[in-house]
Amino acid sequence: MSTMNLTLLTDLYELTMMQGYFKSHAAETVVFDAFYRKNPNDGGFAIAAGLEQVIDYIKNLRFSDDDISYLRSLHIFEEDFLEYLSNFRFSGDIYAIPEGTVVFPREPLIKVVAPIMEAQLVETAILTIINHQSLIATKAARVVYAAKGDSIMEFGLRRAQGPDAGVYGARAAMIGGCVGTSNVLTGQLFDVPVMGTHAHSWIMSFPDEYTAFRTYADLYPDSCCLLVDTYDTLKSGVPNAIRVFQEMRDAGIPLKKYGIRLDSGDLAYMSKQARKLLDAAGFKDAYIAASSDLDEYLIQSLKLQGCKISSWGVGTNLITSKDCPAFGGVYKLAAIKDESTGKFIPKIKLSENTEKITNPGDKTIYRIYDKNHGKIKADLIALAHETFDEAKDMIIFDPLATWKKTKIKANTYKLRELLVPVFKNGDCVYTSPSVMEIRDICLKEQDTLWDETKRFVNPQTVYVDLSDELFRTKSELLEQMSKDSLEKK
Amino acid sequence: MSTMNLTLLTDLYELTMMQGYFKSHAAETVVFDAFYRKNPNDGGFAIAAGLEQVIDYIKNLRFSDDDISYLRSLHIFEEDFLEYLSNFRFSGDIYAIPEGTVVFPREPLIKVVAPIMEAQLVETAILTIINHQSLIATKAARVVYAAKGDSIMEFGLRRAQGPDAGVYGARAAMIGGCVGTSNVLTGQLFDVPVMGTHAHSWIMSFPDEYTAFRTYADLYPDSCCLLVDTYDTLKSGVPNAIRVFQEMRDAGIPLKKYGIRLDSGDLAYMSKQARKLLDAAGFKDAYIAASSDLDEYLIQSLKLQGCKISSWGVGTNLITSKDCPAFGGVYKLAAIKDESTGKFIPKIKLSENTEKITNPGDKTIYRIYDKNHGKIKADLIALAHETFDEAKDMIIFDPLATWKKTKIKANTYKLRELLVPVFKNGDCVYTSPSVMEIRDICLKEQDTLWDETKRFVNPQTVYVDLSDELFRTKSELLEQMSKDSLEKK
Repeated sequence: MSTMNLTLLTDLYELTMMQGYFKSHAAETVVFDAFYRKNPNDGGFAIAAGLEQVIDYIKNLRFSDDDISYLRSLHIFEEDFLEYLSNFRFSGDIYAIPEGTVVFPREPLIKVVAPIMEAQLVETAILTIINHQSLIATKAARVVYAAKGDSIMEFGLRRAQGPDAGVYGARAAMIGGCVGTSNVLTGQLFDVPVMGTHAHSWIMSFPDEYTAFRTYADLYPDSCCLLVDTYDTLKSGVPNAIRVFQEMRDAGIPLKKYGIRLDSGDLAYMSKQARKLLDAAGFKDAYIAASSDLDEYLIQSLKLQGCKISSWGVGTNLITSKDCPAFGGVYKLAAIKDESTGKFIPKIKLSENTEKITNPGDKTIYRIYDKNHGKIKADLIALAHETFDEAKDMIIFDPLATWKKTKIKANTYKLRELLVPVFKNGDCVYTSPSVMEIRDICLKEQDTLWDETKRFVNPQTVYVDLSDELFRTKSELLEQMSKDSLEKK
Repeated sequence: MSTMNLTLLTDLYELTMMQGYFKSHAAETVVFDAFYRKNPNDGGFAIAAGLEQVIDYIKNLRFSDDDISYLRSLHIFEEDFLEYLSNFRFSGDIYAIPEGTVVFPREPLIKVVAPIMEAQLVETAILTIINHQSLIATKAARVVYAAKGDSIMEFGLRRAQGPDAGVYGARAAMIGGCVGTSNVLTGQLFDVPVMGTHAHSWIMSFPDEYTAFRTYADLYPDSCCLLVDTYDTLKSGVPNAIRVFQEMRDAGIPLKKYGIRLDSGDLAYMSKQARKLLDAAGFKDAYIAASSDLDEYLIQSLKLQGCKISSWGVGTNLITSKDCPAFGGVYKLAAIKDESTGKFIPKIKLSENTEKITNPGDKTIYRIYDKNHGKIKADLIALAHETFDEAKDMIIFDPLATWKKTKIKANTYKLRELLVPVFKNGDCVYTSPSVMEIRDICLKEQDTLWDETKRFVNPQTVYVDLSDELFRTKSELLEQMSKDSLEKK
């Protein structure tokens, strides 16, 4: 994370509301859920990512003297509130779905249980971080899926939306399944493989292409990928590369990891022709890498066309999630604690759009796996106090079409609670795995989905149902609000 | 700028190429151009932004001991090169088009003249910063144009692609013409107005909507904007807001800056109905603000429908430039100095796509204004040593269709050289204006464009022509390369 103090990385309204709570009902403990409503790219799932940076943010949440002076200069905050801010520490609980987990719409990825002022302040930064990294991890998983076992390298830094987008975007892309990134800072910060060879400018800085290739091969014989499209791919680039490979072979230099990179032109045709030339010269193990405005659809199409590419550098479309550059996560009040009873009173936000009505209450999520093959059968959002028994039949139903019921037989399923404790009373109780460990987790997570959910066109929906008790709680709140509204008129 | 050391914010290949130059031809001085090929959003122009952060990056370019250790751990760099890096300082010249300037495709926004190793290293970070901020400034200018004088507030932090994207995106949005941002950190770092009131959670945390409004109005009577769509906009939200405004009026509290915010529903209908209710209650000067997935097209459409909104909060679509989330800037080698003659030898990159062939040589750009009305007539890319005389006729021509010639009569035009010196021999010789000053510059810059260039559909192209000498240089290089290629076959 950048060492910049991110405490003021928030919307002004979080602070004006905080002052409002400070003056009126600061003591209340509340529950906020961060969730999203629609999978990016019209896909069947998303990948949760960004938690490690959320943890860093929460741990470092401090209003410096400069921050307080700045806020004072706005002339909207009173001294008692600024005094409170200067001593501010996050004291609440946070639960989260671990990074790398496959997730679905309406599931709280992060749940904050804290005094209302604290829970409100952290809204913006949590959303910024989670929205960004989950977006890029999801896009990367799609690209990796399209490549069917070929390597995907993240090459997008120069087109990222600023330095953080490049650094944390590459982190998220690794979580989604990339084998490496060109981004050296990400490599340093997160101990992930960095990759890359040379650009057109390298070739152009020499008197001719052959000399440029030859110089490069002399320097990096162990990992020698030559960019062949600066002048003319098939007439100049590939023949010059072959000449250099032949010279290396003749000189007895072991050719281990070597090949060419295509960065323009018709990649299907070029890769097939280049393959023929390489094979004819006896370089059957030279790989062909490609880059050039790639995304999951283009990779899938090139593979269907029988292209001879086995390594893909994906830039702009991955690092910006170009066809869907925002994740759309929101952060909604779900419950307020009644301090006299200690119980959470569920809260709901209405909307003319049924999909936008929130799920009330202090909740958790259970994932239901089929014991047989380990695939996900459904997810169940329940109230936090509810318990379930794998030794009993379970009946779940679609919350928008309640007649659609499914019985899951006793002892055929396994339950997993997705939300895990991350902060307790302001102390961090969670240790993030390394990025490469999260990557492994994420690859296994994707195995819990059927191909039908991973496909790009009309993916099968994984059901996210509500427990009976949560469904009744929600229905009663809606009924009550509707009654109140009719009585007013 | 984040205080994180951004020296390793680079692609690995910049460093492998650097080591290659170090071993072969490190002494050469080169010219690199950062330019883009296509205006974002199919528009007629772009806004240059991000230079201040590029300057910070160049000034702070230092490989720390940790950086060197990390690079050593990759086992691809030799000790003499790592030793060179540990003493690295940027020693070259940089020229740039000032922030806030309207720019067009193929114009170098930044020109780097430096030893080849240094010029290569800075490629990635320069592109990351310039691509991001120019993208968002351009999008903001479009949204501001659609609003025809209404205020645009930047509200996108939570949907930005990470913290920097939020912070520098808001900076760029201000340059493009927004009146303020919700992003407090941007306000603090760049001294720009911050804005915002409350969210649905504020309303939901009170027993009822009226109490929430009333409490808010008591706290912030001087700038009281009430969010009216938590439950039912026209039946509950607006009547409750009016009740609070009436109570304020009755209590003799001066109503200065006050109004309502709509965040969902049909904004055309809702705003007209809300306007009627407010007017009927005697609150003709209450403003109506709106937010809800807005962009330039929706704002233009709502205004055509006679909506009653005068203030717009624009989030996701602005901060991500959702319909075009990458600027596409590239960084290409243009010339190499012949150390014996001291002259720059032009270099060109070929491509099967004519538009992708680069403009060779050490260049500059002249903007040609019509003296009469101050609008831009055309831009002229020329070689750096060329001079032009406003007292003489000027004949310019389309470089792709050279028969399209225009004569500009002597003394009817004014020339302005767009590239200004920013670094000389590694020293910064440029002082960035404040963001609000750049915003003023940018608003004036947009006045140098005809509406026909600013419109969203089929905007009129501003011609970017090549000087006679540059055109001849380019043609000769292309001819030579074509001849070489034919001879080889």
